[in-house]
Amino acid sequence: MGFEIIKKGTITDVPDFLAGTCHCGLKKRSKRDDICILYTPRDTVTSAVFTTNSFAAAPVIVCRQQLSRSRNIKAVVINAGIANACTGKQGYDNTLKTLQIASKNLDIPKGEILVASTGIIGRQLPMDIIEKGIEDCSKSLSTQGGHLAAEAILTTDKIKKEAAVRIDAGKDEIIIGGIAKGSGMVEPDMATMLAFVATNASIDKHLLDRLIKQGTEDTFNAITIDGCQSTNDMVVLLANGQSGVSIVEGSPYYKAFKEALSYIMGFLAKKIVQDGEGATKMVEIQVDGARDTHDAKTVARKVANSNLFKAAVYGQDLNWGRINAAMGSSGIDFDPGRVDIYLNGTRIVKGGMADEYDQDKADSYMKEKNLYFKILLNMGKAGARIWTSDLSHDYVSINSEYST
Amino acid sequence: MGFEIIKKGTITDVPDFLAGTCHCGLKKRSKRDDICILYTPRDTVTSAVFTTNSFAAAPVIVCRQQLSRSRNIKAVVINAGIANACTGKQGYDNTLKTLQIASKNLDIPKGEILVASTGIIGRQLPMDIIEKGIEDCSKSLSTQGGHLAAEAILTTDKIKKEAAVRIDAGKDEIIIGGIAKGSGMVEPDMATMLAFVATNASIDKHLLDRLIKQGTEDTFNAITIDGCQSTNDMVVLLANGQSGVSIVEGSPYYKAFKEALSYIMGFLAKKIVQDGEGATKMVEIQVDGARDTHDAKTVARKVANSNLFKAAVYGQDLNWGRINAAMGSSGIDFDPGRVDIYLNGTRIVKGGMADEYDQDKADSYMKEKNLYFKILLNMGKAGARIWTSDLSHDYVSINSEYST
Repeated sequence: MGFEIIKKGTITDVPDFLAGTCHCGLKKRSKRDDICILYTPRDTVTSAVFTTNSFAAAPVIVCRQQLSRSRNIKAVVINAGIANACTGKQGYDNTLKTLQIASKNLDIPKGEILVASTGIIGRQLPMDIIEKGIEDCSKSLSTQGGHLAAEAILTTDKIKKEAAVRIDAGKDEIIIGGIAKGSGMVEPDMATMLAFVATNASIDKHLLDRLIKQGTEDTFNAITIDGCQSTNDMVVLLANGQSGVSIVEGSPYYKAFKEALSYIMGFLAKKIVQDGEGATKMVEIQVDGARDTHDAKTVARKVANSNLFKAAVYGQDLNWGRINAAMGSSGIDFDPGRVDIYLNGTRIVKGGMADEYDQDKADSYMKEKNLYFKILLNMGKAGARIWTSDLSHDYVSINSEYST
Repeated sequence: MGFEIIKKGTITDVPDFLAGTCHCGLKKRSKRDDICILYTPRDTVTSAVFTTNSFAAAPVIVCRQQLSRSRNIKAVVINAGIANACTGKQGYDNTLKTLQIASKNLDIPKGEILVASTGIIGRQLPMDIIEKGIEDCSKSLSTQGGHLAAEAILTTDKIKKEAAVRIDAGKDEIIIGGIAKGSGMVEPDMATMLAFVATNASIDKHLLDRLIKQGTEDTFNAITIDGCQSTNDMVVLLANGQSGVSIVEGSPYYKAFKEALSYIMGFLAKKIVQDGEGATKMVEIQVDGARDTHDAKTVARKVANSNLFKAAVYGQDLNWGRINAAMGSSGIDFDPGRVDIYLNGTRIVKGGMADEYDQDKADSYMKEKNLYFKILLNMGKAGARIWTSDLSHDYVSINSEYST
């Protein structure tokens, strides 16, 4: 491992990244912070990936436009409580207004700011509250602010999601730090997976684009809680070059940087699954021996999103017939007679049929908090991994016991 | 309506169709009948549609082979309790053995028999029990047996699904009757949707194929309970010609027959949704104004399978943001700004945003047992309809509180 995990690390462990937070009143039911600003005084190269949902929220639409004009992003304004999705022209204008307010308070051009929102769909942002919030956040910017920011972006998440790592680069050091939120489309339209990752490495925008895309594919795009995609999903990666270390392909710290970035993104993604709505277990599904990655992913995702499989996991019942049925409905061409399935290393299905496994051992595996299923298609050499949670009574409660 | 509904109608209301049932011991926890035979002494033309699951069960594989050789099916043996899926060569051989036993007992060629199974995946059929069961069923064949057969094919379904209609064809009468089972992949791998429809009309196999395909598309393929496809799904349509009335395109009773068949299939399909695992509500989703049927279906199905939407329906919470989010993740190209959504005739979403609807009225609609959502894409002229149930605590209980 070419990097070292920073204890209690967060996004502001990255030099020259600050965060400011406050409670402006968007979270009506609590006094918790509900708005924050991430800020660096340095020029950056910034990449982002967004939801593919057709009902992309106003902040998603505006961020796409911003990044198409300039990749030098110095600040991100994030609010929790209202998603600003399905809000039409007024919602769009409010996001532009947010840029304007932040620009005035931070004294940087509008073009260097992004906006992210999470919360209820269909409501307009109360702009007076937002304005006051941005003022307060701008005043509270601090190099210690990361932990509070990780808290401020949560909706009904139960745990903070933050991490940072250090790469020793001779006389310099590269830091990567990140925060994230997400636990389904919570309470009940408190949507969205948001992640913000910062580094003081210096990276060219094309490489940064590639790294965020690859990284997201294997981490944030490899988790599922309820198969429901949000209108506001966003992963942002900002590099402010403070370390003076350049990351280019083949350079001394390239491999360590890639590993470290992958660790941070994977860590935050897994935290989201662990904090999944009503989740009592975390399930890793590894599909191997597929013809290509697409096949492997499709099969893994079909199993990971099967309500029947997830309810069985909740009931601690090793019900492999449901894995087979889900795989078989994936539309992927494979030979059912060649399928082997392992649970925590023990083969439970051989050639598509029940293997003679130790029932007591399997039962005790099912009682563990982390389950590891490996599915071998024996059709080729490609693989994919996905993390999911179980389907519990609490999931139904969280998503039904709400009154508009 | 060119047909009349027969009160308490069932499949044996069709002349020269008999059914025999018995308890052979496959349902271990009850004394309920668990095997039955549908039989007609006449030659038939028979069509069927099957699951597209790659792990298609042995009876599905064998039925496909049987029908490729002959369409003159006189008997269907149906067992509940064991699905005979994921059972390899032994499972396949057991299905052939079932044909042999039935052939001996009914004194008809093996080639004129189909086999259907529903129940737990991965277990082998106990053939001694099956043999005894087929003997008993053959002896109990009766023109009154339909109601018992509708009961025998159930697993954890709570209600029988049966219906029959009469078409007045001058001096003759055409009867169509059917039975079905299905409520998810129940208890916990008691899989499968099965439906058997019989008629005494005389129909050419090509027309019968077309009618079953069209009919299934709009009925059994337009329902979803948990988005989980079974390994054993099967719809069989048998026509024994007893009425002497020929149904060909353009013939006097063609339209009435098509309507009546569509009614029977739709009735049975809706019964399956009403009896869905843990279902407290039945939701009809009609998507209109799509560019083509594929688009309409994809959008309807995405909404119908959204756990968040279904949990909101269970909570009687009109949470239209979840409908939008589900639609937007369908991958279908539409303009979010043109979307209108109606609940029981009241517009709740206009141009993709909240309409000014009467909240009290909407709340009272959400308390009803049957909900009707209409989604207008305003992109074209195609439409599709799907029926679904809600996602309740009972669904999770049914599918998790089980111990192998």
